[in-house]
This record gives sequence, structure tokens and C-alpha cells, in this order.
Amino acid sequence: MNITRLSTQQADFDAKLGKLLAFEETADEKLEATVAAIIADVKGRGDAAVLEYTRKFDRLPLADAAAMELPKSELKAAFEGLPADQKNALQQAAQRVTSYHKKQVQVSWNYLDDDGTMLGQQVTPLDRVGLYVPGGKAAYPSSVLMNALPAKVAGVAELIMVVPTPEGVKNPLVLAAAYLSGVDRVFTIGGAQAVAALAYGTETIPKVDKVVGPGNAYVASAKRRVFGVCGIDMIAGPSEILVICDGKTDPDWVAMDLFSQAEHDELAQAILLSPDAAFIEAVASSANKLLERMPRKDIIKTALENRGALIHVADMDEACRISNRIAPEHLELSVGDPQTWLPKLKHAGAIFMGRYTSESLGDYCAGPNHVLPTSGTARFSSPLGVYDFQKRSSLIQVSPKGAQKLGEIASVLAFGEGLQAHAQSALYRKGQ
Amino acid sequence: MNITRLSTQQADFDAKLGKLLAFEETADEKLEATVAAIIADVKGRGDAAVLEYTRKFDRLPLADAAAMELPKSELKAAFEGLPADQKNALQQAAQRVTSYHKKQVQVSWNYLDDDGTMLGQQVTPLDRVGLYVPGGKAAYPSSVLMNALPAKVAGVAELIMVVPTPEGVKNPLVLAAAYLSGVDRVFTIGGAQAVAALAYGTETIPKVDKVVGPGNAYVASAKRRVFGVCGIDMIAGPSEILVICDGKTDPDWVAMDLFSQAEHDELAQAILLSPDAAFIEAVASSANKLLERMPRKDIIKTALENRGALIHVADMDEACRISNRIAPEHLELSVGDPQTWLPKLKHAGAIFMGRYTSESLGDYCAGPNHVLPTSGTARFSSPLGVYDFQKRSSLIQVSPKGAQKLGEIASVLAFGEGLQAHAQSALYRKGQ
Repeated sequence: MNITRLSTQQADFDAKLGKLLAFEETADEKLEATVAAIIADVKGRGDAAVLEYTRKFDRLPLADAAAMELPKSELKAAFEGLPADQKNALQQAAQRVTSYHKKQVQVSWNYLDDDGTMLGQQVTPLDRVGLYVPGGKAAYPSSVLMNALPAKVAGVAELIMVVPTPEGVKNPLVLAAAYLSGVDRVFTIGGAQAVAALAYGTETIPKVDKVVGPGNAYVASAKRRVFGVCGIDMIAGPSEILVICDGKTDPDWVAMDLFSQAEHDELAQAILLSPDAAFIEAVASSANKLLERMPRKDIIKTALENRGALIHVADMDEACRISNRIAPEHLELSVGDPQTWLPKLKHAGAIFMGRYTSESLGDYCAGPNHVLPTSGTARFSSPLGVYDFQKRSSLIQVSPKGAQKLGEIASVLAFGEGLQAHAQSALYRKGQ
Repeated sequence: MNITRLSTQQADFDAKLGKLLAFEETADEKLEATVAAIIADVKGRGDAAVLEYTRKFDRLPLADAAAMELPKSELKAAFEGLPADQKNALQQAAQRVTSYHKKQVQVSWNYLDDDGTMLGQQVTPLDRVGLYVPGGKAAYPSSVLMNALPAKVAGVAELIMVVPTPEGVKNPLVLAAAYLSGVDRVFTIGGAQAVAALAYGTETIPKVDKVVGPGNAYVASAKRRVFGVCGIDMIAGPSEILVICDGKTDPDWVAMDLFSQAEHDELAQAILLSPDAAFIEAVASSANKLLERMPRKDIIKTALENRGALIHVADMDEACRISNRIAPEHLELSVGDPQTWLPKLKHAGAIFMGRYTSESLGDYCAGPNHVLPTSGTARFSSPLGVYDFQKRSSLIQVSPKGAQKLGEIASVLAFGEGLQAHAQSALYRKGQ
């Protein structure tokens, strides 16, 4: 396996790093037109259109619209039918994710100013949320927990899950995770038609306020298109890991951490930064040694050879600067003193600190969310959280005394902007 | 003036309300193509393209790229040249908006679980933000304060403002507001070319992490297109006000409050809900009486006749239910006991409570932000705030003891998902 080596000493390092990181999705006009047509059709014809697309794309001939819904008893049975170790692992993961997310709950606040005017914000949960869960191979129960539990912690009253079941094949772990997360209703539909049904509502599928969850290119395009009609979470790019290592972690561990990102997808990106040139070669050797035993070795090899890199840096300070430029989704700080370097790290979806904190522990069960900003968007966005399922209304209650002072300020500014009704409305409150 | 009257007693009320609220932007394919071409050109040619478009669209022949930037001394001079009342009003508004927004600052947090594993989130400001300010008639200094001050409170290090100055005409109030808000650099460019320059950076314009601020259809389209390359704030629809009144506020006040929204734009929407049929007619009379003296009467009349409504409701409970369905940008609760009804109001950008709280006081100086979700998006989104200029990184530092337990859970789930590198990476940490 030939993984690119770079060094910050190279004169053209900046350009090379830029090229390595470059990733722009190409717009597929045919896909866009297909998705636009499906959305318009579902908006116009509701259930009938959803049933037709489900028959066509998922080869699932549902008898009628009611047959789209899975009974709750089936979710429960899926959970109860799991082997004990899986049942236990799902339960413990759910409990830890719930505990962590409870710390994120935002609460309403207000205060009185000197004139007795009340100012604040009222925080309320979204009423109803739709959760998209992919079918087939990429069906991850952990993804159900990570999307559903923050919504439940936020107090969302109704959580509607959609999951395609091509040819009727269901994933028991996914259904079990839905049961455990308190998902309220599950419909076996997928693709752009499922996103459209959630955004606009049909006779059977309730209209939601926000659609979250991962999906393929059709799902991503549909989410972009319905944004505004309802809310959406982020649109994720390929997964990424950046490991910063002082050279003292077991190279097998670091190689396996790079693999754990690379095995997701041939477009996934795994990068190592280290000031220790010998360690970099040790990780490369570990990677070559370990590759053969990995069932997903072809995907790992392609990802690491095409988009991976082992980068020699001058020191840890430089590693932190480069990390801030990359703004990685997952950042492993595999060093003895992670707290020393944390203040220098500005942009990352999640920071895995210390040698014991493999990214995979965070993916499943440490507590924090595994839905994280990709492609450098950690510069301006955050992990999925309870705050994504709450919203705020500003509160203002002006006292009669406050109306005197505020009426004066507002009317001067409103006249300055040529908005006389604004000015007059303010002046009325000060008795003019 | 003929404002639509509706009553919830009408059999077809739901359908009529739905029709009244319906607003969907029509996609303008020519505009979209123009914007796509401008963005590609600015991305490819940088300053040269920006200068060309500025010459063409703003009829502003800048000598060179450096001439795009306004010296800070010019901002200061604009502020110092203002009449005393305007200077004072801007200062007081800025001070109040700053005080309020300081309550929104989010801080980093973490905790140790029973195994000594540290979990938390690190909250950091965005590095650099771009603020779009429209030129010409819709140039509102209050908008500069409302967008710039939350960014500054969040700790954004560099705030870059762009404002078109067609034919070189500058708005002193806007420049004064930029000075007062601590805007770091100002460039006299606008349109899609300015958004593209901020998103991708040029030789002269620094690349930013997020673009905020209102703009015309070209600016809105450009913001949608650069989303992902950088962050954006919301894309605002026409402004809206919903007044709920118990019938005991001066009808002139309520009529003027409806005007203050209607005067923005012929597409603006102003709706009154009241259980008092006689009061509704009194407000209609006030509106007819007051209209003639309004300089923007043509806009007000068009907006109220086309998109306004006076709605008779059975009681205050019903008014709250209808308000939740509308999810208005601005909600005036013009009643004697607003605290009684507040818990029933779930969706609104801002709630103006009590008879003294005209929406215009909140627009300018009460403290809360005037950038609010429109078109029913208050169901899932929030006012612009400090939180829009901060982002979070999850923190995880697993203890050796925690790695035992978490490694077990994660490996079971990872094997269940067929991700063996994830599983192995977790198992290494428990010594396997």
C-alpha cells in the first residue's frame, strides 16, 4: 500500500495539502431533475405517488398506504430477539448518549432592565421531526440512536422514522434501535419520495418540521430542495479523520484508527500528522501488516492511497495550525498531554483526546454525537445536538417607562431609515 | 382600503387561511444561471472579476482592487458627522443590543463520568465573518447593528462588511453603524460577486467562514450556492406581523403596527386576530383614517389588500392555536395579561408582549435581534444570535478504565455493523 508522504518542509507543501483536501461534489443534472420530479409528484399526489415509487425503486408492492407503517410490536420484537450482547451494548450506548445530551438542553431565560422592561428568549422543542435511515448495507443502528435520542431529549413530541426495506428486507438492529430510542412511528419508505412525504405530508405520512439523518445522493438532493419548507440537518460529505500523534502511541493503534475511517468509503480521508519521522514509517509498516486481515481491505486501500496522507510536521504547534486549516470531522489528539494542546485547536467536529480515545469509541458509545461537520465545515458548524431540535422565540415586554426611552430612540432611527409607520408606532407608545 | 375579513366560524376558514399564507418563491432560471456564472468567474479570476462586475452593475469605475476598501477614517468621520440625535440613538441602540446579546454567549463545558472519562464541548467563535449590507434605498443602519454586534459579542476576530455603493453614493448612517459596531474592514462591492468574493476569497477580499445579512434575489441565490463552502444565515422571505389583540388596545396603535410591517414591502403580510368583532372594525376604520398621512401609503395599501387579513376568532385560546399554525416572524400579544398566554405560544420569531411593546421598538433598540425566521420557519428556526457565530467541538478523553467498558460496547456494535476496523480499534484500547 502506497500512502502519500508529505512534509511541511517541502516548498510546495501548502499547494499539495490544498490539493489533498480538495473535494467538491459534482452536480448531477439528471439526478437533480429526477429528484425535483419526485418531490413535485409526492407533493401533488401524496400517498399514491409514494406507493408507486416504493414499488418501482424498492421493488416493494405494498397493498395500500396503511401497509407502509410498521406496527410498534414489530420494533419491540426486533429488540427482544437480539442476542444478549447486542441488546446490552445498544442499551448501554443509548443510556450514555442520553446522559451526555441532557447536558445540552437549553432553557428559556429572561431579565428585567432598569426600566422594568422584560427581555429574554423562550426555548421550545420542535413539534415533529422526521428521521431518515438508509436501508441495505449502510443501515447503522448507531445512526438511529445518534439522531433520535437528541430529539427525544429536546422534548420533540413525535418522531417519525422512514427506512427503505428493498424487497421487504428489514434490519433487526435498526428496528431495535428505533424501539430503544422511542421512535413514535416507522414507515418503510425511502429515497427522495420519503423526504418529500415528510416535508409536505401525505394522507398517511405526517408533515414534519425538520428532516434529519444520512442518505444517498438522492436523499441529500431532496433534503436540499425541501429546506425552507421544513428544516434539515447538515448534508454530510465523505468521512474524515485527522490523527495528531507525538510518536509515542502504538503504531498499530494509529494505523487501525486510520483504517476505521478509511473502511467507511473509498472517498473517506485519513491523515496523520506527527513530528516524528520514524513513527510515521512505523505507522506505514503497521498499515501494510494489518491491511491483509481486514475484511474491507479493498475499500481501505483505495481510500488511503487516493485521499490519505502521512505528514511530517516540525512540531506540535505546527500540527495544531495545520489541523485548524483542515478543520477535520474527527480529530484524534493521540498524545500524552492532550489538555496542553486543546486550547490551540479551534476547528474540529469532535476531538478524541489521549491515547485511549479511539474515534470508534466516540462513534458508538462514549456519549457525544457521531453526526459531525465534514469537509472543513467545522469552521462554522457543530455536531448534531439537542440544540438542533429546539428553537428560540425572542421575548420583549416593554414597561410604560421603558416605552418613553425606547420610543425616542426607535423613532429617530426609523425616521432616519424613511420608515414613518415604524416611527409613529413607537411614538404612540410614548404618548405622542 | 379593503382588507380581507375572515372568521374562524366560516366552514372553509382553514382553506382560506392556507391560501392567505401560501407563499412560495418562484425559481427564476435566468437569474440562477447569471448568479452561477458570476460565482464561477469570481472564484476563477478573483479581484479582476469583482472589479468588472462592480463597474458594470454599480457603475462604479474603481481604479484598482485596493480602491474597493473604505478607510476606517471614513467610517469614523461618517459617525462623527451625524446629527446629535441620530448619533445618540445609534449609540443607545448599540449598547442595548450588545447587553441583550451578551446573555446568549455559550460557554465550553465538560464533566467526568464514573470511570474518569471526560466528556464535553468546547465552544469557540468563528474566525472571520462577512456581513452583506444592501445599498441604495433598503440600506438600514439598524441591520448593520443587528448582524455585526452578535458576531462581535461572540468573539469573531475579523468582521468584513461589503456594501454596494452604486455610482459611488454612500449612506452615512450605514457607515456610522459599521464604525459603532466595530466592523473591521469595509469593501464597496455588492451583489452575487461580493458574496462569491467573501466565500472563496480574492487577492484583496479575505475568505470568510460565514456570510450573513439581507440582500436582493441575486444575493439570496448566491448565498444558497456558496452554502457549504462557508456558512450562511437564513434566507429571509417577506416580512410578517401577526397581532393578537383582546380588543382593548387603542385601535390606532394596532392599525399603525400593521402598517409598520406593511410599509416594508408590497409582499409583506400583516394579520390581526381578535375575539372582538367590533374592535376589528375599529381597527379597519383607523387604518383607513391613518393611511392618507403615510408617505409609503401605496406600499401599505397594496400589502394590506393583497396579503393582509383581519380575523375574528372565538377566543384567545383559538387565537393562540392559529398563531402556532402561522408561526409568524413578529407576534404582538397586545393584551392586558400577556404572561397568561405566553405558554400557549409555541412558534414565533419574536413575541412582543403587552400594549406598550410595538414591534418597531424591537426592530431598533429593545435589545433582541430583528433578524428573525419568516414564512413559518419559526417552527424550526430561531432569531439570529450570538450562537450563530459560535460553534462547538465535542470533547472526549477516555480513561484507561473507561476504555475497558467502552471498548466492549463499541466492538459489539461495530461488528454488528460490519465495521471490523472500528471494532479492532476499540478492542486495542481494552488490551485485546
